[in-house]
Amino acid sequence: MIMTKYVYDFKEGNKDMKNLLGGKGANLAEMTSINLPVPRGFTVTTEACNKYYDDKEIISEEIKEEIFNHLSNLEIITGKTFGNKNNPLLVSVRSGARASMPGMMDTVLNLGLNDEVADGFAKATNNKRFAYDSYRRFIQMFADVVKGYPKSSFERLLDKIKEEKQVLYDTDLSEDDMYEVAMKFKETYKNIANEEFPQDPKIQLIEAVTAVFRSWNNERANIYRKMNDIPSSWGTAVNVQEMVYGNLGNTSGTGVAFTRNPATGENKLYGEYLINAQGEDVVAGIRTPQPIKTLENIMPEVYKQFETIAKTLENHYKDMQDMEFTIENGKLFMLQTRNGKRTAAAALKIAVDMVNEEKITKEEALLKVDPKQLDQLLHPNFDVTDLNNATVIAKGLAASPGAGTGKIYFSAEDVSAAKKRGEQTLLVRLETSPEDIQGMNDANGILTIRGGMTSHAAVVARGMGRCCVSGCGELIIDEENKTISTKNGLIFKEGDYMSIDGSTGNVYGAKIKTVDPEISGDFETFMKWADEIKKLKIRTNADTPKDALQARKFGAEGIGLCRTEHMFFAEDRIFAFRQMIAAESLEQRKKALEKILPYQRSDFEELFKAMEGYPVIIRYLDPPLHEFLPHTDEEISALAQSLEMTFENLKNRVESLKEFNPMMGHRGCRLAVTYPEIAQMQTQAVIEAAINVNKQWLNVIPEIMIPLVGDVKELEYVKSIVCQTADQIIKENNVQLKYEVGTMIEVPRAALLADKIAAQAEFFSFGTNDLTQMTYGFSRDDASKFLNEYYDKNIFENDPFAKLDQEGVGKLIEMATIKGRSVRPNMHLGICGEHGGEPSSVEFCHKVGLDYVSCSPYRVPLARLAAAQAAVKFEGKN
Amino acid sequence: MIMTKYVYDFKEGNKDMKNLLGGKGANLAEMTSINLPVPRGFTVTTEACNKYYDDKEIISEEIKEEIFNHLSNLEIITGKTFGNKNNPLLVSVRSGARASMPGMMDTVLNLGLNDEVADGFAKATNNKRFAYDSYRRFIQMFADVVKGYPKSSFERLLDKIKEEKQVLYDTDLSEDDMYEVAMKFKETYKNIANEEFPQDPKIQLIEAVTAVFRSWNNERANIYRKMNDIPSSWGTAVNVQEMVYGNLGNTSGTGVAFTRNPATGENKLYGEYLINAQGEDVVAGIRTPQPIKTLENIMPEVYKQFETIAKTLENHYKDMQDMEFTIENGKLFMLQTRNGKRTAAAALKIAVDMVNEEKITKEEALLKVDPKQLDQLLHPNFDVTDLNNATVIAKGLAASPGAGTGKIYFSAEDVSAAKKRGEQTLLVRLETSPEDIQGMNDANGILTIRGGMTSHAAVVARGMGRCCVSGCGELIIDEENKTISTKNGLIFKEGDYMSIDGSTGNVYGAKIKTVDPEISGDFETFMKWADEIKKLKIRTNADTPKDALQARKFGAEGIGLCRTEHMFFAEDRIFAFRQMIAAESLEQRKKALEKILPYQRSDFEELFKAMEGYPVIIRYLDPPLHEFLPHTDEEISALAQSLEMTFENLKNRVESLKEFNPMMGHRGCRLAVTYPEIAQMQTQAVIEAAINVNKQWLNVIPEIMIPLVGDVKELEYVKSIVCQTADQIIKENNVQLKYEVGTMIEVPRAALLADKIAAQAEFFSFGTNDLTQMTYGFSRDDASKFLNEYYDKNIFENDPFAKLDQEGVGKLIEMATIKGRSVRPNMHLGICGEHGGEPSSVEFCHKVGLDYVSCSPYRVPLARLAAAQAAVKFEGKN
Repeated sequence: MIMTKYVYDFKEGNKDMKNLLGGKGANLAEMTSINLPVPRGFTVTTEACNKYYDDKEIISEEIKEEIFNHLSNLEIITGKTFGNKNNPLLVSVRSGARASMPGMMDTVLNLGLNDEVADGFAKATNNKRFAYDSYRRFIQMFADVVKGYPKSSFERLLDKIKEEKQVLYDTDLSEDDMYEVAMKFKETYKNIANEEFPQDPKIQLIEAVTAVFRSWNNERANIYRKMNDIPSSWGTAVNVQEMVYGNLGNTSGTGVAFTRNPATGENKLYGEYLINAQGEDVVAGIRTPQPIKTLENIMPEVYKQFETIAKTLENHYKDMQDMEFTIENGKLFMLQTRNGKRTAAAALKIAVDMVNEEKITKEEALLKVDPKQLDQLLHPNFDVTDLNNATVIAKGLAASPGAGTGKIYFSAEDVSAAKKRGEQTLLVRLETSPEDIQGMNDANGILTIRGGMTSHAAVVARGMGRCCVSGCGELIIDEENKTISTKNGLIFKEGDYMSIDGSTGNVYGAKIKTVDPEISGDFETFMKWADEIKKLKIRTNADTPKDALQARKFGAEGIGLCRTEHMFFAEDRIFAFRQMIAAESLEQRKKALEKILPYQRSDFEELFKAMEGYPVIIRYLDPPLHEFLPHTDEEISALAQSLEMTFENLKNRVESLKEFNPMMGHRGCRLAVTYPEIAQMQTQAVIEAAINVNKQWLNVIPEIMIPLVGDVKELEYVKSIVCQTADQIIKENNVQLKYEVGTMIEVPRAALLADKIAAQAEFFSFGTNDLTQMTYGFSRDDASKFLNEYYDKNIFENDPFAKLDQEGVGKLIEMATIKGRSVRPNMHLGICGEHGGEPSSVEFCHKVGLDYVSCSPYRVPLARLAAAQAAVKFEGKN
Repeated sequence: MIMTKYVYDFKEGNKDMKNLLGGKGANLAEMTSINLPVPRGFTVTTEACNKYYDDKEIISEEIKEEIFNHLSNLEIITGKTFGNKNNPLLVSVRSGARASMPGMMDTVLNLGLNDEVADGFAKATNNKRFAYDSYRRFIQMFADVVKGYPKSSFERLLDKIKEEKQVLYDTDLSEDDMYEVAMKFKETYKNIANEEFPQDPKIQLIEAVTAVFRSWNNERANIYRKMNDIPSSWGTAVNVQEMVYGNLGNTSGTGVAFTRNPATGENKLYGEYLINAQGEDVVAGIRTPQPIKTLENIMPEVYKQFETIAKTLENHYKDMQDMEFTIENGKLFMLQTRNGKRTAAAALKIAVDMVNEEKITKEEALLKVDPKQLDQLLHPNFDVTDLNNATVIAKGLAASPGAGTGKIYFSAEDVSAAKKRGEQTLLVRLETSPEDIQGMNDANGILTIRGGMTSHAAVVARGMGRCCVSGCGELIIDEENKTISTKNGLIFKEGDYMSIDGSTGNVYGAKIKTVDPEISGDFETFMKWADEIKKLKIRTNADTPKDALQARKFGAEGIGLCRTEHMFFAEDRIFAFRQMIAAESLEQRKKALEKILPYQRSDFEELFKAMEGYPVIIRYLDPPLHEFLPHTDEEISALAQSLEMTFENLKNRVESLKEFNPMMGHRGCRLAVTYPEIAQMQTQAVIEAAINVNKQWLNVIPEIMIPLVGDVKELEYVKSIVCQTADQIIKENNVQLKYEVGTMIEVPRAALLADKIAAQAEFFSFGTNDLTQMTYGFSRDDASKFLNEYYDKNIFENDPFAKLDQEGVGKLIEMATIKGRSVRPNMHLGICGEHGGEPSSVEFCHKVGLDYVSCSPYRVPLARLAAAQAAVKFEGKN
C-alpha cells in the first residue's frame, strides 16, 4: 500500500507543485531551491486539508505524525528545539491556497512561546522587550485566529496600557511594559476561554494548523472564492516556517515590495517597510510604512541584496513579483514571492515592456493579463470640464486607478443596500477589512482614511478593478454618526455626493460627470497582439447605433445580437409599439406596424453603417408582449385614452396577454407564428435598410435571426414569411441582395434536434441566457431567491448565468455544433448570451469550435483577450 | 430515370399497400385478388396527393396522363365508354386515406353524366327515372363536394318539388319529376357558379380528383387527424371505380354491415340497407334503413351470398369487417371492406371470442383493441338507486354505450364553450354532421333525433368512446329556440339537465348520479393476457388512499408518484400547511410542521396498506409555496386573522413568495435546500409510517423521491438530510428498515448529467410534464395561447403534453437511461408524467427499456394493454 505523503519539506518542492503545496508553499520551495535566503520549514498539503474535511474536521493521527516528524527535522537543521527555553524554535503558521487569496486566510506568528520559553527567550536573546512583544503578539493571534475570540479585547487593553504609559506607538513601550502587556493578554485569554493559555507548543501547533484548515471555509473565504471562481474543492496548504524576527530592534524590520510598480507598471522596485515590526504590521496599515527606496540609505547592503534578489525572481518567474521580506539584525530573509497583482494599466505596460525587453514572447505576454481586468481601462474617467470646476477637498494615496462618483456610505452593508436601490455609491471607511468585501464590490469607489498602497483596501480594490483612494488622513471620519469632514470644516453626511480619482488620489466634494476612455498606447499594442492570435471573432450585442459605434471603437467585428424590441424603449417610439400590441384586429395591428416601420428601417440603416460592412444579426421580436403594457388601472386608463380605446378594451387586452410563466409563454418565434405581420414588417425594415445602405457604399448581407425555435417546422414557417416578403421587396427594387435566415439555439430541444433545424437555419446563435434557464429549469429573475443558499451550502460554486455551465449547458452547445455542422458544414455559429463576455466561457467557445462570441460593447476587449488566451493555450504558439 | 407510378389498377394492389393506396384502395385490390364481386377500377396513390401539395395544389400532366390511361383500360374491361351516350361508363370518385377517416373525406358518384349521356342513359337502360335520379345526385354532389357550393340550395329545391308533387320520399317522384329535378339542379348550379355545369367528363374527373386531394386539408379532416394522431404528411389516395346502381328499382339497393355486432361484439351479421337507394343514403340517415336480417326474406340468394362473403372476409382479414355493398338488379357488389370500428366492450368480446374460435392467437388478440378505447369501460355508469328514481322520458337507439349526464346544448360550439366553463354537457342535435366533431368530443354524451346505428353520430361517438343515443324520433327538437320536448309536453331548455344511457337508448329528464365500473368477464380475461405478455410494470400516480385503492382494482403494481402536497387540499389540513408556509421563523415553521406530520404519516400508512407491498414512491414537496396562499387583500386579511398574524406580516410573506415564473422558481428540491426542516418532517412521516405498517404484516421499502434535481450536489445535500433523519429514527425504533432515495429527471440538465446524478440516486423517475416544458421552453398553462395556431399551421401535429415528443424529450430520456444504468446497472427507471397513460408513449418507454410507467388510476388498464402491445410488437411472440 502506498501511503499518501501529506507534508513536504521546502527542499522537496518546487514552483510547479502549487496544486499540492499552495502558491506560497510552492514558491517558498522554489526560492529555497535557487538558494535564496528563506527561513527553513515545511508545508502541509492541500490534500491534507481535503482529508481534514473528509474526516469531519479532524486532523488524522497519520498527518499529525508526519507534521511532528518534519518538526523534528527542522529542529535538527536549525539547531533549535521546539518548546526549549534556552534555544527555542518558534515558527509561523500560514495558510497558502493554490490561488492567492489576500487577507482571506489566517496566519499565526511566534508559535512555540509559553511562559517558560518566553522567559528563557528573553534571557537567551538578552532582549526581554522583544521576547514579550513576540509573546503578546502570539497570544493575541492565537486567541483571534485559532480560537475566534474578539481581537478588540486585546487591542483595547493595549491602547489602555499605552495611554497609562503615555506613549503613542507600541514600539515606545518599555520591556517591563511589554511583559505587562503579555501577562495581561494571557489573563484576558483565560477570562474569555475559561481555561489557561495553552502551554504545550505541540498542541499550539496542531490547533493552529486546524485553524488554517477551518479558515478555508469561513464566510470571507467563500465570498472571495465566489467572486474569483475558485472551487472550494481546492483546499489550502499550511506552511510551518522557522520564525525570523523583524521586531528585534532598529536593525530589524519587515516589508513588502513589487519588482515593478503595480499601479502604473513602471519598471522600478516599489514597496514599503517598517523598522522594528513584525508580520502583518505593514499590510495592516497600523503604522504608516516607509517607501522601499529609503531602505537604501538606512541599510545599503541589505537594499542592494534585495534589489538583486528581486531581479532574480522576476527573471526566474518571468513575471512581476510581489515579495515579503524580513530583516533580522541586518540579515535579509525572503518570506514569500508571488506574481504580483496589478492594475490593468500596469498589467498591460508590464506585458508590453517585458516583450520589448525580450524576456517573454507575445503569447506569454497575452497570458499575463487577466481579461476581466481590462474592464478597469474601459470605465469612465472624469469629464475634464466638470473636473476643472471641481475643488479637491483632500488628497490620499492613488491606490487603484479610475474615477468614481456616488453617494457616500459608511458601511459595506449600507453600500450594498443602496446599490440595490439603484444608487451610485462610494464606500468610505477608516480602513477596510475582509468583512467588507461585498460592499467594496458593490461600490463605485472606495475611500479609506488609514492604510498605504498595500493596505487591504488598496490590494482588494486593484484586484476588483474598483477605483480607490487610501490613507487619506486629512479627512476626519466619524463612523458612528456617519459623517466625514475636512480640516476646513466641510462636513459630508451619509448620502451626500463625493468623487474620488484613484489615479491621482484626489477627493472631491461633489458629483462629477464621467467620460469614456480610449484605447491607445500599450493597450492598443497589446490588443493588436490579441487580434493576431485569436481564432474567434468578437461580435457585440448592440441595439442602438450608439452602442454599435462604441463597440466598434472597442474592436467589435460585427453585431451578434440586435434586440429589435429594445429599439422601442424611447418615449417617442413606445407609443406606436403599444398601439401595435393593443391592437384588437389585424387591420389595427397593421396600421400600428406601419408607424413602427420607419423607425426600425432607419435604426437598421444606422447599425449597418456603424458596422462598416461587418456582419449584423437582427433578432426578430422576442419578449412577451405584455412587458410593454402597463398593469395598474390608472396607467391602463391613461394609455387607453391616448390610444383612443375604451378602458375596458385595453384592460381586456392586458388581461388576455397575462401569463403564468412569461419566460415560457407567448414569445420568440411564437409571436411570428401567431402574428406573421410583425415578421413581415421587420423583414421589410431590414431588407429596405440594406438596400438603401448598399446603394451608397456598403455590401451588407443582413442576417435575420428567428428566436426561441424548438422545432424545425417553426423555423420553416417563419422563414417562409421572411423570404416571401424579402424576395418580393428585392424584386420590386430590382436589385441584388443576399440575406441569411438563421435561428437562436436557446431551448434545449433545438440543441437536441440541431441537425434537423440546420436544414432550415443558415446560422446558429446560442442564446445561453435562455438556454441556461431552460436547462436548469430556473429563471434568472426567480433564482436569486435560492441561489445564495446554494452557494452557502456549496451546491453551486458559480452563478450559471455569469459563467457558462460547461458540463450541462455546454454539452448542449457541443451537441448542437456537431449536429448543425453535420448538415451544413459552413454554417456560422456563435453565442450571444451574457457569457460571451466571460473569459472561461469564451475559452469554452474556442474549444468547441464556434466562429464567434458576442457580448456587450464594454466587454469586447475582454472577449478579444480571452479569445487570444484560449488560442495560445489550446493551439500552441504561432 | 425511374418514373414514379402514381396510379394502380385494383388488380395491381393488395391489402399491404395501405400506405400507397389508402385503406379503401388496398382493400378493394385485396377483394379483387380473392375474386369477390368488386366493380372494377383503379387507385390514384397517396404519393400523388403529396405531389399535388408539393406542386402548390396542381395535378401534374404526368399524373393526369396516367389517370386517363387507366381510364381507357377500364373502358376496355367494362366495354363501356366514358362520355358515350349509348353505353356510358360512369364512375365513383372516393377518397381513401391510410387510416379510416369516416365522414371526413368526400365522395362523388355517377361521374361521367352530362345532358347527352343522361338522355342516352335513360334510353339505354329504359329507365328515365333512374337516369335522371343519377344525374341530379351527381350535379348536387359535384356542386357540393367539388365546388363547395351550399348543399342546402339543392335540398331546398328538392323539398319544394316534393311538396308540389305532394310526395313524402324522393323515391315517390315520377320519371318526369326526376327529369325536372335534374334540370332545375343544373339551373341552380349555373346561377351559383355563373357558368354551365361542366359537360366534359374528363374535366369532371380531374376536378373531382382535385377535390378529394383538397379535402385532405379541410378543417374537419385536420381536427379528426389531431384527435387521432394521424400525420398530415400521409395524404389520401383516390379511388375511381365503375358505378354500380342501387337506385335501379326494387331489386336494387345499398347497405352497410359488420361481420359481428360492433356495439356488443356478438358473433352475428349486423347492418342495415335501403332498397332503391344509392351511396351515402344509408349512413346519412335520410331514410331510416332496414336491419340486414330482413334482406334474407326479400332476396334470400343475395343474402346467402353476402353472408358467405362476410365470413370469407373476416377469416381473410382475421378481424371483424365493416363492409359496404350495393345490389344492382339482384346482383351483389362489394364496394368496401375494412376492419370495423367497435365499442370497447365489443372489441374485447371479439378479441376473446376469436381466440376461443382459434382464429387468432392471444398476441394477435391483444393488438386488436385500441388501448384508448378501454377508457369507455372504466367510466361511470348510472347509480342504480338514483336510476330507479329517474323516469325514462324517451327511448332512442343504443348507439354508443356508457352513461352520460349534463346540461343540454344545441350546437357543438355551445357545448365546447360550456366545457371551457367547466360544465358537464350533452350535445342534442337533429342529426350530427362532420362540422360537429369538436363539440362531440367535448360533450359527455350525444343525443340525436334522426339517424340509425350507422349514422354519423353513432359511428363517431363509438370511435370516441362517447356515449350516444341516436334516432330518438319521439322527441321534438326546436334547434332555433333551443328546446326539446316530449310527446307529453315536457320541455327542456338549453342548460337544463338530461341524462342518456348509450347502452339502452334510454333518455332521462334529470341529472343522475354515476358509479364506477368493474373489471370482469372478457375484460378480465383479456387483461390477464396483457399482463402475461407485457414487460413494463404499470404503477399509478396516486396521492390519496382512495385513488390508490381504485388503481389497485385496475391492476396497478405500485405507486410511481405520490404528490405529497396534494394531501393538503382538504379543508381541515390546509390550515396547518398554510401556517407552515406563512411562518416567519424557523421555530414557527417547525411548529407548523409538527401539526402536519401526523396527517402525512397516517396517509402514508394508508397508501402502503392499499398497495399491499407493491412499491410506493413518495415525492417530496414540489410546488411553489405561494400556490397555497391567497392573493387578494380580503383573503389575506381573513387568513392572517386565523393564523394570528398581522395583515402586514402575511401580506409581506405573500409578496415575498411571488415569482415571475413560478414554474422555474423556488420549488422542487430547492425548497428542501432552503427549508431542510420540511424534508426532515416528510422523512419522519415516511419512515415512521413504514415502521408502523411493517410491524403489522408488510415489508414496505419506501422509495423517497427528490424532485427537480439539476445537479448531483443538490441531491447529495437533500439526500444527506433524508438519510440522517431516517437512520436516526430507524435506530431509535430499533428496527431494520430499507428505504431508497431517488430523483425525478425533469429538468434537461439532469438528463444530460444523469451519470453523475446516478451516483447519488437509487432510482430515476422521468417527470415528463416538466421535462417537456423545459425542453420546449413553454409552460403548459401558457402554451394554450398559441398551440392552436401551431396546429392550424401544421407546425405541431400533436400536443406534446399529451403525446410524448419522442425525438426531443425522448432523446433526453434515452440519454439519461443509458447514462444512469452505466453507473448503477440495477437502478429502476420509470416515467410518471401524464404520458404514462398514452399508448405511443408507453410503447416508447418499452423500447427505451424503462422498468415501469406510472399513470393516473383510470389509465392503468390502458397502460397495461399498451405495454402488452409494445411487447408483442417489439419482442416477437412468447
